[in-house]
Amino acid sequence: MRMVDLIDKKRLGQTLSQKEIDFIVQGYVQSLIPDYQMSAWLMAVCFQGLNDNELYHFTNSLIHSGEQVDLSRIQGMKLDKHSTGGVGDKTTLVLAPLVASAGGKVAKMSGRGLGHTGGTLDKLESIPEYQTTLALNGFIDQVNKIGVAVIGQSEHLVVGDKKIYALRDVTGTVESKELIAASIMSKKIASGADAILLDVKYGNGAFMKTKEDARDLALRMLKIARAFHKESSVMMTNMNQPLGNAIGNQLEVLEAIDTLQNKGPEDLKELCLFGGSYMLLQGHIVSSFEEGYALLEEKLKNGEAFKKFREMVKWQHGNVDYIDDPKLFKEATYRIDIRSKEEGYIEYIDSYELGHLCMLLGGGRRVKEDVIDPQVGIVLSKKVGDLIKQGEILMTIHSNNPLEDEMYETIDHTITISQTKIEKPKLIEQVITF
Amino acid sequence: MRMVDLIDKKRLGQTLSQKEIDFIVQGYVQSLIPDYQMSAWLMAVCFQGLNDNELYHFTNSLIHSGEQVDLSRIQGMKLDKHSTGGVGDKTTLVLAPLVASAGGKVAKMSGRGLGHTGGTLDKLESIPEYQTTLALNGFIDQVNKIGVAVIGQSEHLVVGDKKIYALRDVTGTVESKELIAASIMSKKIASGADAILLDVKYGNGAFMKTKEDARDLALRMLKIARAFHKESSVMMTNMNQPLGNAIGNQLEVLEAIDTLQNKGPEDLKELCLFGGSYMLLQGHIVSSFEEGYALLEEKLKNGEAFKKFREMVKWQHGNVDYIDDPKLFKEATYRIDIRSKEEGYIEYIDSYELGHLCMLLGGGRRVKEDVIDPQVGIVLSKKVGDLIKQGEILMTIHSNNPLEDEMYETIDHTITISQTKIEKPKLIEQVITF
Repeated sequence: MRMVDLIDKKRLGQTLSQKEIDFIVQGYVQSLIPDYQMSAWLMAVCFQGLNDNELYHFTNSLIHSGEQVDLSRIQGMKLDKHSTGGVGDKTTLVLAPLVASAGGKVAKMSGRGLGHTGGTLDKLESIPEYQTTLALNGFIDQVNKIGVAVIGQSEHLVVGDKKIYALRDVTGTVESKELIAASIMSKKIASGADAILLDVKYGNGAFMKTKEDARDLALRMLKIARAFHKESSVMMTNMNQPLGNAIGNQLEVLEAIDTLQNKGPEDLKELCLFGGSYMLLQGHIVSSFEEGYALLEEKLKNGEAFKKFREMVKWQHGNVDYIDDPKLFKEATYRIDIRSKEEGYIEYIDSYELGHLCMLLGGGRRVKEDVIDPQVGIVLSKKVGDLIKQGEILMTIHSNNPLEDEMYETIDHTITISQTKIEKPKLIEQVITF
Repeated sequence: MRMVDLIDKKRLGQTLSQKEIDFIVQGYVQSLIPDYQMSAWLMAVCFQGLNDNELYHFTNSLIHSGEQVDLSRIQGMKLDKHSTGGVGDKTTLVLAPLVASAGGKVAKMSGRGLGHTGGTLDKLESIPEYQTTLALNGFIDQVNKIGVAVIGQSEHLVVGDKKIYALRDVTGTVESKELIAASIMSKKIASGADAILLDVKYGNGAFMKTKEDARDLALRMLKIARAFHKESSVMMTNMNQPLGNAIGNQLEVLEAIDTLQNKGPEDLKELCLFGGSYMLLQGHIVSSFEEGYALLEEKLKNGEAFKKFREMVKWQHGNVDYIDDPKLFKEATYRIDIRSKEEGYIEYIDSYELGHLCMLLGGGRRVKEDVIDPQVGIVLSKKVGDLIKQGEILMTIHSNNPLEDEMYETIDHTITISQTKIEKPKLIEQVITF
């Protein structure tokens, strides 16, 4: 078998066999296939796609390129969730303890942020002393004892995906739905969960810009889940504005704490209740969505969700003084209020630009090696559809440096205000379950 | 400027500027852009193409990636020709001296063969002592004195094309019409000719399998020629059977000598008269195609074309004893006649397979480093449309080793015979001139 022939096959839109796909993936992992052939093949995949069988074999080959996590020691259905990433997306921080407080077993391995989107691990690490690295035994014990653990992925998981992703990142081959779907699902499946809730975001702050693209991606991920006999649902959610109000690691932890205490922003709460209900359903803990929803609402109200979060932080060696008294979190040096120049309804919020701004403030990574400043970020005072008066605060920038002039210019363009009434957008567009 | 953004642009079908294309080509030549990014970009070009402006800039950038040949010391229009390559294509060996014998200045730089097609240089080098490497001054002097020289391209010509072609060869990105057109035309233009006759072949022995693909390629090459103010015509010619009867380096030289003595196969003669007439027209030596055709026919008949060939061989240090007495050429050890098992009309000759077979016999290169055996090859006794009787010779294999069994099997499949009459195919499909 020669790689050049397999590139040709894909370029011509022909179907690759399991053997051929394994040759490509394992050959690349073992450096038998050079980067320049792999990148040409990946680009051909961007144009020709992978059919269902190819996608299954590709995902399977990625899974077998590294270690697989054996979670069989965890009693009950192991529940996981994944978001395709958006701006201000702190869902896991709320959802994981919330579902655990209702009896779900949430064994979650998360990633770090890159570019305009943040990562759950970075957010959790803004809690002093919080450990995101646990040995597998400790991870399993914690989930068995308290129902929830959120840690980083092992370096040895889906080694092929890591190597391929690094290449895609520099060769313009990131935006293939098949490659995205296989990358996500290989990690989730290798992580050992039984059921996976997928949050596929679309809009100006998401990787998928349109509903149609999001739906295409969702269907591919569900097909992979089904092929691997994993229960799975997809929520397609609107990311045409940030989720909640806070963007930035520590600011998002604070908002998550508020939400767990039932005083967070409505959209974040709604997403967690909705997604959590599906997780409980998939975990056979409730028998209907409505039952799950009511149970989770109760857990937010009676403080048990928050208590579960505190318990998780404690088990992972985080300093719970900060959870008990969030005022202990040291704020950024500068807090700059951005005020509206006119009265009207918020029409548009450019999530991508806000995510990018947070990165520029030091709250995100331009390249993997960048060190994150947990304190910086943005807190929105208004969301799409809200009425704002002239001079009222639109958002507050948290920064450890004075803002540069060009940042002000960028900020000016992130929000548009309309003179006519604007409807509040629907957050959850659709749920697709197999 | 970042290469990854330029890959993205091309993947999304956007247009690249001159500056961006120069960044890519010169960056790659200088190894500032790694192979893995270049191959991804090339694959994106395979799918999205290059528009006329991009193609011009890409070709121009290739030309500027190396030395350019200054032929201004040659008096008169410098004429060149190029064939996209086929099986048994020894046209240059006949055409170059033929046109020179009629007063054209043919300054031709040729290439070597790879895969199933042969190269003019390899063919010429089967003439003992023939030198394909001349210093530029010697090359120019020879064209000024005798009107013709055929040498190898300088290593320093279109350096970018060489590097890019080597990468395309191993990354499944050879078959892009824009990349093929730019590769050919950059070499021709950098070689300094004023007028270029292009022979674009289609069919089972050519890189372009269909007329439509050949026409697409032809139009792209003509557009490039026009943009560089080079007179150019394209002959689209049928390569559904080998050109002439001989395949193999020395065998083709012998057939070229026959043709120059006006006793060669009809199709080869026709192609040379036809193409030569266009070259004379482009060189302003004749004022009509018909005038050129008659003049060239005369040169074949009166021996001046052959004399010119002998003169060229002599100037390039070849041993003319072999030209005067072709029996001096040492034949291959084995000459195996393949006979027809049935009576009928030749319906189909698989040129690709015959070219491949010639390579397997040692007459071609699988990889660049392979050494060629000039003696081996195939001589067809019949062409498409010919009637053959049972037991009559179809072809003769010239080999320096006994044939392996599987070769016989391959040979059996190269020719199909029909019981119903088959028309002789049209050799020259169309001429396109700008």
